[in-house]
Amino acid sequence: MRTDNLEELIAKFKQKDRRALARLISLIENDPELAGKVFKHFNKPNDAYIIGITGPPGVGKSTLINQLAQKLAEEGKRIGIISIDPSSPFSGGAFLGDRIRMSGLQQDKIFMRSMASRGAVGGLSRATFDICLLYEAFGMDIVIVETVGAGQSEVEVLHLADTILVINVPGLGDSIQCQKAGIIEIGDILVVNKKDLGGEEIAVQLDLILDDAVMYIGQTGWRPPVVQTNSISGEGIDELIEEIWNHKEHIELAGILEQKRQKRLKDKLIALIQFKILNYVMQHIYPTIEKTKLNNIYENKYNVYDVAQSIYNDFFSQLKGRES
Amino acid sequence: MRTDNLEELIAKFKQKDRRALARLISLIENDPELAGKVFKHFNKPNDAYIIGITGPPGVGKSTLINQLAQKLAEEGKRIGIISIDPSSPFSGGAFLGDRIRMSGLQQDKIFMRSMASRGAVGGLSRATFDICLLYEAFGMDIVIVETVGAGQSEVEVLHLADTILVINVPGLGDSIQCQKAGIIEIGDILVVNKKDLGGEEIAVQLDLILDDAVMYIGQTGWRPPVVQTNSISGEGIDELIEEIWNHKEHIELAGILEQKRQKRLKDKLIALIQFKILNYVMQHIYPTIEKTKLNNIYENKYNVYDVAQSIYNDFFSQLKGRES
Repeated sequence: MRTDNLEELIAKFKQKDRRALARLISLIENDPELAGKVFKHFNKPNDAYIIGITGPPGVGKSTLINQLAQKLAEEGKRIGIISIDPSSPFSGGAFLGDRIRMSGLQQDKIFMRSMASRGAVGGLSRATFDICLLYEAFGMDIVIVETVGAGQSEVEVLHLADTILVINVPGLGDSIQCQKAGIIEIGDILVVNKKDLGGEEIAVQLDLILDDAVMYIGQTGWRPPVVQTNSISGEGIDELIEEIWNHKEHIELAGILEQKRQKRLKDKLIALIQFKILNYVMQHIYPTIEKTKLNNIYENKYNVYDVAQSIYNDFFSQLKGRES
Repeated sequence: MRTDNLEELIAKFKQKDRRALARLISLIENDPELAGKVFKHFNKPNDAYIIGITGPPGVGKSTLINQLAQKLAEEGKRIGIISIDPSSPFSGGAFLGDRIRMSGLQQDKIFMRSMASRGAVGGLSRATFDICLLYEAFGMDIVIVETVGAGQSEVEVLHLADTILVINVPGLGDSIQCQKAGIIEIGDILVVNKKDLGGEEIAVQLDLILDDAVMYIGQTGWRPPVVQTNSISGEGIDELIEEIWNHKEHIELAGILEQKRQKRLKDKLIALIQFKILNYVMQHIYPTIEKTKLNNIYENKYNVYDVAQSIYNDFFSQLKGRES
């Protein structure tokens, strides 16, 4: 990507060109160094409100987000969506199911993007943070991040959010499976979708679990509400939006929103430094690992710990000897 | 943990004391530096055969593993199981559901351990690799690693395995959801469990998907078989075991098993070096980040990229000036 092209792209982006937004997202997704270059061209950062949505596959996250985004758009909000797809580890590509399902959205206020969970160079949180910033620069008021939330990197992504919704449905196996899959305790709002299939019982179960989580409520003063929805008919969506704004108000007044935003930036700073250092290591250490050291560990795998230590020691002595 | 205690523990471990094994697993899970110390006490590494088992929650992975382990134990094999639980991100603890369900196993040849996906200090792959080594040192012939396989770190764990089984069930939503959740393409053997609920249709779908994956088959010469099982009745388990040994034989003859084992060690070496360097950074850089730099990014978040670069640059100049 030549610099003049990038500048051209940013100029179009500033004119609210949606294709320029799409192209910049792709570029940033694939190149961790690019975000820094892009944001040099902007000087007034915006704060969008970030909503994280998680829940196991099949609970209707996509249709729920569709409903949510439509309603918020009707209220005049601009919405950017990042949908993280558990990707095929073989092909590296995201499956297009969500994109197909979201096509009914109003095109002018809503922008939707799928990202493969293994597709983002430099990690999922890295790319999601950078794309959030891009959405904010584009003028989005709300960013929605969707993920199945199983696995470490997906849970990390959720920590970017100001309000986290955890979606469950009736009949997803017994309550043990539900607890395992649903990571209920991370939720600021618990949603029971497909309420027509009998949401009352699971809503009661969730309420009981919340009653036990006294410590959590003590920390933040927020008791997660349980909202029943039907993402097909739209039932319960108004109540859900109301609870989102309730939570926003709560964390604003308690000073938690500001803390979250600062923590997000500090985490990002640390992640950037780590990435740069690991990049250095990748370029200057790995190519120099000698065959003898590798054979040493192939012959006796218990040696791997000692060999790592010796390469690590060499790293620092080489650095100190290096002129630059 | 004092050293004399560790030596005592290892002595008991060498006498095949299962409680010593359990204790060492806990210690290694929580302390990335410990594995190196422990394996100094061993000198003849064993190679267990590692089987990875993945599939979305609710497909019956636990009962299937139970059946599989029982049958393999009857053949005289010793089996170590690592079950990775999508953990509660709030409490950090693994949910005990699996442990409860696995209690019917023969106690003498099988050892089962649950691990929270966020519980392992230094990452999931790190701990899983180290625990595999511990199982091998204990004399296990087979290690089974179970994970839901959604998310980056869980997929990484699967790459430790020699043979990967992907479990699906009939009726888990439409085929798009199935594809998203099932990460079919990573599987060396595809299992359709709960065949009593109508496994034929999904087995045919999987076969069709495999027909498209010509490139994959071309690379390894292996066409993943689709096996229908019923993990409650035990139906299909014999066939599944036969296919596992078929796959093992295939990769042995093609030299792929040796390549996998070497790659696993090289990946481990790199992960260890990265971990040590990031540890250094954590101890020597983060505490020194000045308030002014943090305020700089809190005031304008676009600055985070430049501030990271300047701290990175300082890292190298400090290092070169440091005496040690």
